[in-house]
Amino acid sequence: MVSARRSLKNLKAYKPGKPVEELKRELDLKEVYKLASNEIPFVPAYIFKAVLSQIPQINRYPEASSHYVRQKLARTLKVKPDRLVFGNGSDELIVMTLRAFVEERDEVIIGTPTFLIYEIQSQVAGARIKKVPLRDYRYDLETIARAITKKTKMIFIANPDNPHGTYVTHEEVVKFLNKVPKNVLVFFDEAYFEFVMNKDYPRTLALLKTRKNIIMSRTFSKAYGLAGVRIGYAVCDPEVAQCLNNVREPFNIDRFAQACASAALDNYRFVEKVKNHIVKEKRYLYRELAKLNLEYIESVTNFILINFKKDTARLNEYLLRKGIIVRPLAEWGLPEFFRVTVGLHKENEAFIRHLKGFLKNK
Amino acid sequence: MVSARRSLKNLKAYKPGKPVEELKRELDLKEVYKLASNEIPFVPAYIFKAVLSQIPQINRYPEASSHYVRQKLARTLKVKPDRLVFGNGSDELIVMTLRAFVEERDEVIIGTPTFLIYEIQSQVAGARIKKVPLRDYRYDLETIARAITKKTKMIFIANPDNPHGTYVTHEEVVKFLNKVPKNVLVFFDEAYFEFVMNKDYPRTLALLKTRKNIIMSRTFSKAYGLAGVRIGYAVCDPEVAQCLNNVREPFNIDRFAQACASAALDNYRFVEKVKNHIVKEKRYLYRELAKLNLEYIESVTNFILINFKKDTARLNEYLLRKGIIVRPLAEWGLPEFFRVTVGLHKENEAFIRHLKGFLKNK
Repeated sequence: MVSARRSLKNLKAYKPGKPVEELKRELDLKEVYKLASNEIPFVPAYIFKAVLSQIPQINRYPEASSHYVRQKLARTLKVKPDRLVFGNGSDELIVMTLRAFVEERDEVIIGTPTFLIYEIQSQVAGARIKKVPLRDYRYDLETIARAITKKTKMIFIANPDNPHGTYVTHEEVVKFLNKVPKNVLVFFDEAYFEFVMNKDYPRTLALLKTRKNIIMSRTFSKAYGLAGVRIGYAVCDPEVAQCLNNVREPFNIDRFAQACASAALDNYRFVEKVKNHIVKEKRYLYRELAKLNLEYIESVTNFILINFKKDTARLNEYLLRKGIIVRPLAEWGLPEFFRVTVGLHKENEAFIRHLKGFLKNK
Repeated sequence: MVSARRSLKNLKAYKPGKPVEELKRELDLKEVYKLASNEIPFVPAYIFKAVLSQIPQINRYPEASSHYVRQKLARTLKVKPDRLVFGNGSDELIVMTLRAFVEERDEVIIGTPTFLIYEIQSQVAGARIKKVPLRDYRYDLETIARAITKKTKMIFIANPDNPHGTYVTHEEVVKFLNKVPKNVLVFFDEAYFEFVMNKDYPRTLALLKTRKNIIMSRTFSKAYGLAGVRIGYAVCDPEVAQCLNNVREPFNIDRFAQACASAALDNYRFVEKVKNHIVKEKRYLYRELAKLNLEYIESVTNFILINFKKDTARLNEYLLRKGIIVRPLAEWGLPEFFRVTVGLHKENEAFIRHLKGFLKNK
């Protein structure tokens, strides 16, 4: 056997939310509600034309530069096109950043618990990982700033955070950035940015204008409803973008993804509709959870973290048998918590109904 | 500015074949024939249904396991499903292999000239690259075997090779593998495998059964006509597959790619049709090139390497203005060669016509 890299030893595998198709296969269920992966419950109808437009060229490689979606996104965000880098979802942007900037044994600072991919991929990169616990379910930027050493190369900040649904403010971020040395890269993962209504949420694009050590990533997988096609983007200094492009596989963004993302930017009203739905349904869920005396964290995103105060394994099993997939968080070190994605009203109702059923029967 | 990794210094960027859309934009051309990126000139009509089937779930993440296409491919190849790893094109399989197995300063052996991504991505990985020149336009397995040292971790073999269109035989490969230590990984890139008609081409799947140090990659981008959707696969020992999956981004294969590849496996007759077309058109091109006294390398693939015996820059410019994109090879260190992909008959005719025009006018 050829030996794998040292950095792969004891690597935790990432276990994604259970797919609908898999649960249907396993339990022979007809109807399954997936409230596990923070997808929105709507299909963006406008992609139909975009998808069809690519079929006659499907035998041809996509444009390596993602030309059209790049031009359109640059106009939308009011940034120069050379500040944009596209990834096969935010996941690939995380990997590309590590591959371009982090040497083996460099220190990477990560919140804990947070989105698991930061740790897994930093470990693959051979980085030394320093974990700073969240405080009151929020990223603790002050402690993170104090944790920076000469060996620190990069800091991941999920804002809003997953699985907590909380965020750090513009003011907090500015204070934090003023303490970060210029040779340390800060990666702001704003995958859930579109859902945030709060006025004190960071204006990261403005912060980027005067700082070269920031990468901001966003995605079309969440609010835009395009998780199935895989496209995300980073905004950063053009020189940083060049480094990311240097390690990028030339055809990382396929034709359908480029066309769908381009159509998505022309149809922002869809996102507005989604946001309104989420706000309304979060209110419903908060109310029902309160009635059940369950503690939850108020969320600025499309998911809610619930403190079940006992191990959620049996609850999870129960819900799966009822055809409802939520996200148990034992892998995050939170065995007594679970995360539920805001779904359609009937899905949220079914979730609450079966949750009640479980609590009654226990 | 945050410093990039040392390994990125002096990195050559990969310059893909010029996209049709780009040339149309630049020269305001209506008709452009792309004979630059070894795509087949047919659109696989059977993907239509596969693509449509995914639209109603486009807001949902794809299955991380690529379940259906994995099961189908395993049956097709008669291998166990856990021997398969899917990549966002072969490119990603190359990157995943380097990320899983190659430590910084490990030695990687690469033929020269060959597919450029091996060198670029090995350099990103921080590997020491040892180049072994091809001999008579073919991979020189004997010299490669002799070049192996204690520091060698991995060897890339493009078979058939790109840009030469030549291959190494089963017998040569067996002899070679018998000389390769078990701790050295051999990556056989068989992207053009489907085009090969020769009976002495390696039976790599059989070789894989008794050897753990082989990764074989293939792709749906070439003979299957799915370059636009990005999916390739590796076959290897299950333990090696596990290492690749450990570094893989969970949702690297999008919904359309999984569905299209699955449909492709049900429609192998399409590939047979493609192969027959290529054989016929290669005969036409060989004949016409011979009439023009141009030297070419006989190819087992869908492209032909032409020895122009003088710098091809002016020829390339001339053809671009006529709306014909071929692949100049200066970046491969072959400024007097160019590569032409076998297209539709009318495309091949137009290529020959304009090639004649250039030769007359010079």
